[in-house]
Amino acid sequence: MKKTLIIGANGQIGKIVVELLHNQDRPVVAMVRSKQQAEKLENMGVEAVVGDLETDFEHAFKDCDKVVFSAGSGGNTGDDKTLLIDLWAAKKAVDYSLKEGIQHFVMVSGLGAQDPDEFESEIKPYLVAKYFADQYLLSSGLNYTILRPGSLTNDKGNGLITTTRSTSTNDLFISREDVAKSIEYYINRDEVSNQIFELYHGNEVISSALTASN
Amino acid sequence: MKKTLIIGANGQIGKIVVELLHNQDRPVVAMVRSKQQAEKLENMGVEAVVGDLETDFEHAFKDCDKVVFSAGSGGNTGDDKTLLIDLWAAKKAVDYSLKEGIQHFVMVSGLGAQDPDEFESEIKPYLVAKYFADQYLLSSGLNYTILRPGSLTNDKGNGLITTTRSTSTNDLFISREDVAKSIEYYINRDEVSNQIFELYHGNEVISSALTASN
Repeated sequence: MKKTLIIGANGQIGKIVVELLHNQDRPVVAMVRSKQQAEKLENMGVEAVVGDLETDFEHAFKDCDKVVFSAGSGGNTGDDKTLLIDLWAAKKAVDYSLKEGIQHFVMVSGLGAQDPDEFESEIKPYLVAKYFADQYLLSSGLNYTILRPGSLTNDKGNGLITTTRSTSTNDLFISREDVAKSIEYYINRDEVSNQIFELYHGNEVISSALTASN
Repeated sequence: MKKTLIIGANGQIGKIVVELLHNQDRPVVAMVRSKQQAEKLENMGVEAVVGDLETDFEHAFKDCDKVVFSAGSGGNTGDDKTLLIDLWAAKKAVDYSLKEGIQHFVMVSGLGAQDPDEFESEIKPYLVAKYFADQYLLSSGLNYTILRPGSLTNDKGNGLITTTRSTSTNDLFISREDVAKSIEYYINRDEVSNQIFELYHGNEVISSALTASN
């Protein structure tokens, strides 16, 4: 059985995705930046690979058929890293996926990436990078799922979400754990979606929220 | 006769392009950020329009059939501006051009934008933005010329260039004046090129250097 590569496996969402898939005995490879991070994961029984998003990381894709790109999320790093990681490394991940025959690419995007002009936002430069990363994936020919969560919280997830945007901006948030669970849902589906979802906390269980949108 | 819109007309290259075209009595509209900059140009007899690259600047395209995008060049601004101007405003300029029926879009790009991984460069984040801006233009369906000058100098131009990259990195420079003259050459041609040129100081007159590459 081929593996799922998690790019950004030491990030806040990536960590939870790795844990969820590992606990289900799904074959997963966690790509992290340092040897220490890799050793820590290996001690927990998780396969890890060291890869630098700013150079060549194609080796990480070996024996994988699915990819989750959850690196660099947030918009709190400097915008040089926004360009190099959120945009350029995402582009390279798509290119490597095409070369290595990846069957499904799950992109963790963000609310506003569909149109950086739509909201007045101080993270607009970040949203511009995510817009172009998403567009690159969309036009690549790869099978994709693009997830655009609202504002991320560290609350405990309850597995209840909605993909419908509320008119109240106070409702436009979601816990990282529920984003990770939504990613897990897609990795466990064999049918391919080629769809884009916004994700917010809500009242529907993940499987029906994401299926209903199909 | 329709006009040529210069976006970034107060920039170092844009200023020279405006002057060259104006001195030839070519109808030109200089887009600048402030009313004072516009008044200064109007006092010299140059038509000017005030436009903010970070909001909506579609009004500037009225009665124009050619566009030169020379805004934001350099890579010395913060990378938030790189994302907002070099990438997002360029994307919007392409969108407006499509809506307004622009016949020829001349993009001032930069050496390295064809592949930001090709050179070790501290301006790599800037080159990533230029890569995606160029790609957006390339796939837009607009008639385009993309000019990728080497390192820019303030030397006086002599009208002698080459489009062939030297193996010596010491030769990879060009004066802003010669870049402006190369832009002027394209604006004065009615035939459309859909081509990409690198530009360096050299030994050929601009018309033959750019024609020979056709």
